Amino acid sequence: MSGPIDHAFPPLLNDNILVAARGGKPKRIPIWIMRQAGRYLPEFQEIRKKHGFFEIVNSPELSAEVTLLPIQRYDLDAAIIFSDILVVPQALGMNVIMEPGVGPVLPEPLEEISDVEKLNFSVDVREAMKGTLAAITLTRKLLEGKVPLLGFSGAPWTLMSYMIEGKGSRTLNKAKAWLYRHPLVSEKLLYDIGTVVINYLVEQVVSGAQMLQVFESHADLLSPDLFNKFCLPVLDRIQTEVTRILVERKVEPVPMVIFAKGGHYALHQLSKLTYDVIGVDWTVDPKVARQLVGKDAVVQGNLDPCALYGDDRTIKTLVKKMIDRFGEDRYICNLGHGIYPDAPVESVQSFIDAVHTYFPGLEIQM
Amino acid sequence: MSGPIDHAFPPLLNDNILVAARGGKPKRIPIWIMRQAGRYLPEFQEIRKKHGFFEIVNSPELSAEVTLLPIQRYDLDAAIIFSDILVVPQALGMNVIMEPGVGPVLPEPLEEISDVEKLNFSVDVREAMKGTLAAITLTRKLLEGKVPLLGFSGAPWTLMSYMIEGKGSRTLNKAKAWLYRHPLVSEKLLYDIGTVVINYLVEQVVSGAQMLQVFESHADLLSPDLFNKFCLPVLDRIQTEVTRILVERKVEPVPMVIFAKGGHYALHQLSKLTYDVIGVDWTVDPKVARQLVGKDAVVQGNLDPCALYGDDRTIKTLVKKMIDRFGEDRYICNLGHGIYPDAPVESVQSFIDAVHTYFPGLEIQM
Repeated sequence: MSGPIDHAFPPLLNDNILVAARGGKPKRIPIWIMRQAGRYLPEFQEIRKKHGFFEIVNSPELSAEVTLLPIQRYDLDAAIIFSDILVVPQALGMNVIMEPGVGPVLPEPLEEISDVEKLNFSVDVREAMKGTLAAITLTRKLLEGKVPLLGFSGAPWTLMSYMIEGKGSRTLNKAKAWLYRHPLVSEKLLYDIGTVVINYLVEQVVSGAQMLQVFESHADLLSPDLFNKFCLPVLDRIQTEVTRILVERKVEPVPMVIFAKGGHYALHQLSKLTYDVIGVDWTVDPKVARQLVGKDAVVQGNLDPCALYGDDRTIKTLVKKMIDRFGEDRYICNLGHGIYPDAPVESVQSFIDAVHTYFPGLEIQM
Repeated sequence: MSGPIDHAFPPLLNDNILVAARGGKPKRIPIWIMRQAGRYLPEFQEIRKKHGFFEIVNSPELSAEVTLLPIQRYDLDAAIIFSDILVVPQALGMNVIMEPGVGPVLPEPLEEISDVEKLNFSVDVREAMKGTLAAITLTRKLLEGKVPLLGFSGAPWTLMSYMIEGKGSRTLNKAKAWLYRHPLVSEKLLYDIGTVVINYLVEQVVSGAQMLQVFESHADLLSPDLFNKFCLPVLDRIQTEVTRILVERKVEPVPMVIFAKGGHYALHQLSKLTYDVIGVDWTVDPKVARQLVGKDAVVQGNLDPCALYGDDRTIKTLVKKMIDRFGEDRYICNLGHGIYPDAPVESVQSFIDAVHTYFPGLEIQM
């Protein structure tokens, strides 16, 4: 098997994150940051003044440019393609707009179960996602092998709940009502979204993605029973099917990360799936996370995004404490959630420095 | 020691919740519902058409009337005084308004740490909270001993974060920035809010409250380290001081519940404090909760509020499963969070019926 079929990409110079994801020993603890190409970066804000959010997402050139911004500024160990989880509902035929100060909004959400009929599950993802897929190929070239490029998708429940709520929700009460009132319709919908997610992730790898993350961002409002019934089987299928299809298409499978934000109750179950890496949010103590996922699992996380409001010394102390607890092995460093728009850029530097200069014996005095 | 000094209240006819809270064996599993006098009740909506939210809170007659609504409609085992956690910031001198469709808003939040100087920590809670305190006394009389009356307060971190954010927030990033940037100021602020909470809770008992719940509603966005540093000591002090002051004033102490919503990571620590009951939200499996708090703890919870969107049979099955897992002993039934405004009133009936007719041997076929 080889890499992506149609592309000749520059050789990879930093494979730390891929080695760590496969359970090996990297040369240093790899670090990347969820939403690292986002709003906290002044150079991103400059680009956003000239271009709409989804204009950037759908333009290979702009998406590649934005993806590279944090790599140019910081010594990170991975790039992640600039896109949005809501490109999947868009591909299914739903309108998604970015409302300033509010976030993404779906003006015509699913209201009745019959609305599911309107969704186009036979979508050709190569056509519908061509902007992001071309951005992946272009970014791989522009990266010149500096670091690996990650692709990603929202997980089916996270996408389904957005499609029903139409916007962010503090309770997801409309979407959860479907799970309790229409469990069979919900399972079918999640399965069908899952199929599109699988095809999308496969095409990302074919286009050049070297690692994938699945974002179950709305795990926090589920119960363990709901998660086990509605999420776990679909998440399981996504990993196994993406890998199976890649093998079938003679493309080398890539490491896959599952990150269920707020899914503290699910960490043990997730560790039994075949994902390579399990993301952990900041509400779980690293030692507790290790106990829950077992000694063989590779974990990713979990600095509180708000820790970046602290000064250099505070950040370094917190990073040291975090890595001491996770341990250096089978570990990828990240925040426990996407970086917030008001994170100071110098704090990100402190964070990355603290990880790269981590030394277990070091005592930091506060 | 005796009950509240200045009042002669009707004898209590249903002490199930007090017996359970003290670790004894009640005649049936006691049940109450957080926000049971809230917006889901059509009779509450009728009263709200004629009166503002804080008008009801501050009027002893209206507050008592609203508190009794769910007791008249359902066979519950406790009433909880209709009030709001934000009466404490109000007492400290902050303006709080109820914005339709948004929720409570503090138009002049704490922005700089110097803003703390504006807060009136020497407030006389008997004067500032006289509406709610008089409502407690009046409700105790109107209840005619039917069920015990609960009082409550927000916990200091939950109040502090509201006071800084000024409204609901999905990240609490402004308030959490204080914890990372100004840890000493934050600890002092939390201590000082704690003192007012203690005095307020003491006066509630003196006025007739027979049990108290402390709501740490914003635990979900903290890390275990932040919770241990900023919340746990203040929560500990609240329980011990309320009890100590009551004894000193020759008033019988009452059972106290601590409910840290989203505090899955804190359940074990909370069980080591001297609270009588530990509230559990719906993201923690009852068996896991029991393991974390230990066999002697009394637990309260934790049906997913969204379970009330299910039909009668679904609700009964879920309640059965929940109680099977919690076990009947040392248990108080409740939702895992406040009831949502769109919960159907007939589902609440199903929920209560399911608890009252719980039988461990029963098989429910779905």
